[in-house]
Amino acid sequence: MSKIKVSDYLIQELYKLGIKDFFGLPGDYCFNIVDSVQNNPNTKWIGCTNELNAGCAADGYARLNGYGALITTYNVGELSAMNPIGGCYSENVPVIHIVGAPKTKYIKSNAVMHHNFCEPDYYAGIRAFENYTEASAFLDEQNAKNEIERVISIMMRTKKPVYIAIPADICDMEIDNEPDIQLPVSDEKTLNEAVEHAVRLIDNSAVPVIIGDFLVERFICKKEFNEFVNTCGIPVTTFIMGKGIIDENSKYFTGSYLGSMENTDVYFQVNNSDCPICVGTVFGDFNTLKYDIRVNPKDHIEILGTVTTIENTVYENVLMKDILTKLSLRVQKRNMKVIKAVPQVCNIEDNDNPLDFEFMFQRFQEFLKEDDCIFSDTGILNFFPPMLNFPRNARWYNQLLWASIGWATPALFGAMVAKPSRRMILLTGEGAHQLTIQSVSNMFYYNLKPIIFVLNNSGYTIERILSKDPKDAYNNIIPWAYTDIIKAFCKKDVFTAKVYTNQEFADVLEIAAEEQKSKLCYIELFTEEMELPYLVKKLYRRNEIKPE
Amino acid sequence: MSKIKVSDYLIQELYKLGIKDFFGLPGDYCFNIVDSVQNNPNTKWIGCTNELNAGCAADGYARLNGYGALITTYNVGELSAMNPIGGCYSENVPVIHIVGAPKTKYIKSNAVMHHNFCEPDYYAGIRAFENYTEASAFLDEQNAKNEIERVISIMMRTKKPVYIAIPADICDMEIDNEPDIQLPVSDEKTLNEAVEHAVRLIDNSAVPVIIGDFLVERFICKKEFNEFVNTCGIPVTTFIMGKGIIDENSKYFTGSYLGSMENTDVYFQVNNSDCPICVGTVFGDFNTLKYDIRVNPKDHIEILGTVTTIENTVYENVLMKDILTKLSLRVQKRNMKVIKAVPQVCNIEDNDNPLDFEFMFQRFQEFLKEDDCIFSDTGILNFFPPMLNFPRNARWYNQLLWASIGWATPALFGAMVAKPSRRMILLTGEGAHQLTIQSVSNMFYYNLKPIIFVLNNSGYTIERILSKDPKDAYNNIIPWAYTDIIKAFCKKDVFTAKVYTNQEFADVLEIAAEEQKSKLCYIELFTEEMELPYLVKKLYRRNEIKPE
Repeated sequence: MSKIKVSDYLIQELYKLGIKDFFGLPGDYCFNIVDSVQNNPNTKWIGCTNELNAGCAADGYARLNGYGALITTYNVGELSAMNPIGGCYSENVPVIHIVGAPKTKYIKSNAVMHHNFCEPDYYAGIRAFENYTEASAFLDEQNAKNEIERVISIMMRTKKPVYIAIPADICDMEIDNEPDIQLPVSDEKTLNEAVEHAVRLIDNSAVPVIIGDFLVERFICKKEFNEFVNTCGIPVTTFIMGKGIIDENSKYFTGSYLGSMENTDVYFQVNNSDCPICVGTVFGDFNTLKYDIRVNPKDHIEILGTVTTIENTVYENVLMKDILTKLSLRVQKRNMKVIKAVPQVCNIEDNDNPLDFEFMFQRFQEFLKEDDCIFSDTGILNFFPPMLNFPRNARWYNQLLWASIGWATPALFGAMVAKPSRRMILLTGEGAHQLTIQSVSNMFYYNLKPIIFVLNNSGYTIERILSKDPKDAYNNIIPWAYTDIIKAFCKKDVFTAKVYTNQEFADVLEIAAEEQKSKLCYIELFTEEMELPYLVKKLYRRNEIKPE
Repeated sequence: MSKIKVSDYLIQELYKLGIKDFFGLPGDYCFNIVDSVQNNPNTKWIGCTNELNAGCAADGYARLNGYGALITTYNVGELSAMNPIGGCYSENVPVIHIVGAPKTKYIKSNAVMHHNFCEPDYYAGIRAFENYTEASAFLDEQNAKNEIERVISIMMRTKKPVYIAIPADICDMEIDNEPDIQLPVSDEKTLNEAVEHAVRLIDNSAVPVIIGDFLVERFICKKEFNEFVNTCGIPVTTFIMGKGIIDENSKYFTGSYLGSMENTDVYFQVNNSDCPICVGTVFGDFNTLKYDIRVNPKDHIEILGTVTTIENTVYENVLMKDILTKLSLRVQKRNMKVIKAVPQVCNIEDNDNPLDFEFMFQRFQEFLKEDDCIFSDTGILNFFPPMLNFPRNARWYNQLLWASIGWATPALFGAMVAKPSRRMILLTGEGAHQLTIQSVSNMFYYNLKPIIFVLNNSGYTIERILSKDPKDAYNNIIPWAYTDIIKAFCKKDVFTAKVYTNQEFADVLEIAAEEQKSKLCYIELFTEEMELPYLVKKLYRRNEIKPE
């Protein structure tokens, strides 16, 4: 039986999941783990500027790559990544958080070591992370191999983040190199029962509808989902967080679900259906436009990652992939009329007016192309992409549920490490951007070439809408010279622009389309303080957004 | 009985502790709390660029001001502040972390709201923070007033951080404005017993010695400690983290405790004493130069914030302030010979050699003046100030136990908000600085005028020492143009300089001494990659620093 060091084993097994890049910061307790990454010919260390940025980068990487990994040092490092790991837990992003801990002898003697307390507690970190991960482990001499296999198995099954702390000496301990990771499988009997139940319900329904959402992608079921839609011929819509999981040019796609406010045909179709089939859906507040939906998915068909619920009967241990595949084979093909939500018609000529969202929307729609990948940050810009018509295989990543400002900049960095050749576009407000702007320097360092749009409108605009008085001083932010900061991050060539008018926006898109082929593009968009995307205006007018 | 809103009550009571400035970021769940800060004529909102920076700023503020406060929004905000709150817990810094939570109705219905999970859990945050705070509370209709009073009382007694989450609707609830905060008091009987025991031990000892450390300052006992030293005439040393708590020109000060490596007279005095009196001491790894001390404080006299231990007898509920005051009245005055650690003699002429630490040390010693306040970040620079001779009332703040890189820049910002007229000096490596550089923009915004030294030596130098190979790629960092970034943060006047030689260092200190009176000074120090302060060289040579 060949032997292998614990941390080498961990990295070896994670590489099998497709994790080639490990994000994080070094620290004296995690050197051994980082060494294992560097010593493995297949894997690479991606040093970040702080753990908040590293955690968001691992998140963005996992969204594009399937799985991601983060390495931090105990307490001072790991805790700064708790928010992004919480985001992964909230939005079902499978990231493994690996924490380097002090040697066993110090833990056993409860020594007052740096990164701990006057009265030490070596398990504070894992107890904290238990609340934000699906599984956690603190390795020791006995449990190391089993615990590694347990947490990886759980991450694969649930697609949720997991946590593993490894004392420095345990990293170097040798174990049998005989991997025993449990691959997720459905319970065959329950799966068949669920399929029978679903087929009966769907085939007997008059007006079924499919609602797809982001968990379809997280459970790596886009192919099966699209096949299911195409083979059964039932109209399909997507929630905001799932926009792009289905080819929007498909003849079965009715348009995005935007509550009763917009795309009202979709609204009526969903809410009047006798058989809504919810696949990977999360009925969060923003995802449902403030609960503007009357469907209770468990009353009908709700297919989640590992559980399907049909008419309130719960079928555990049924994998999304398996049930979608079986339904594609079984459900009768229909020939339903699919009412397409009429795309917003808008044909404004270039003009020298101050930059406005209506104009931006139109030009941005034209600018989008196949395979584009958009990351938008929390704030008004999250309400910009929902009404776009997506070209084939374009995808939009947001963090609409966890909604942590600053996430998008480092998440885009991580995503580009996963897929460096894909064209990626960042939409961020300057307020959010300030939290994590360091990540742009990482993009330069790794020669990544996103197109970054920073909306500079002098404050936290979404909060001006939500707080008692839009003029509240706490919604002002410090006016940085963003393009100068970016240039100071790196001596590399960069395209920067400041856009004040609609004409300038039209022009800059043309230039950026070319420049992006060879360099990072960083474009600052200046608007009036309360210039809002269409959907925010509508929500605002309807008083739907209120502080909670 | 007059009534008051819950969040107004909280801010009113915190102001009574001297908290005038509240650090944080706004968010829709914490608007009501920020409004209470803004509506109170005595208190001020200090908006920060992210919660890591805000938490460190509240820490720095509390170190200078006695108490500090941080306001964040639930989950996405609070979690990013968990590392700095952990630092406060580690190093006994009393900061109250106030978290704005969703309205009670959403909590009760377990709604899928933004900043929560697909399967919501409204108490994940408080459970996580329980591991890093001395007390925590989640307010509701019944407990609001009592819980506010409980957590503030515990913070006052223990000088440790506390946590309080307030649902948005509970902020607006009215309660009786009849404060009932428990002030910390000693148990009189136990106090007297402890005093008798201590006096007996001290007066009967042949060669007593006093070891002071940073908890003296945290428990606001510098005055009482200095009085005790002066009235009993016993030689006194300080641990690294407590440097500056005693007037270093006092005839009783023997020099800093630096283990057997340096100031060896102090080493022998401490380790050969028959009665070491440890006041506010923490026997952490770096604070004791890797446990290079033979004293077990509980075998002798250990006076901590609320507990005194004498010959292993524990006296609970004895406040440091009370026992020091009583000991000053009771202990016999001695006339002991105080051996002064010989200050490092060094008299190097200005020269054009590449900048080195020996030269820097000498000039920096001359540069220091009364009341100066130094913040240094974790890394090799934490080993630069220990051997300085401090002018009267100069003080050095480090985070030697928690040791979270990046802490010093925002901590200095917070400290300057507390004491804007004091001259403050930041010593940070560029690696640490990258984590939290945004905080410099806050210094500009509030017209603060620190002198910032950024050591630019192309990497995480302390880690080059600790990791297996100094050339390990993960210890490289991205080479930013720091002074350009700083200038882009703000249009205000700033003094910047880049220093490559000893002569330039001597010159820049003279200039900065003048420039600092009117503007922020930002000085980049370039050295060779492995240029090290004297103490690090000695530790390194002795192989005392090793990865743990």
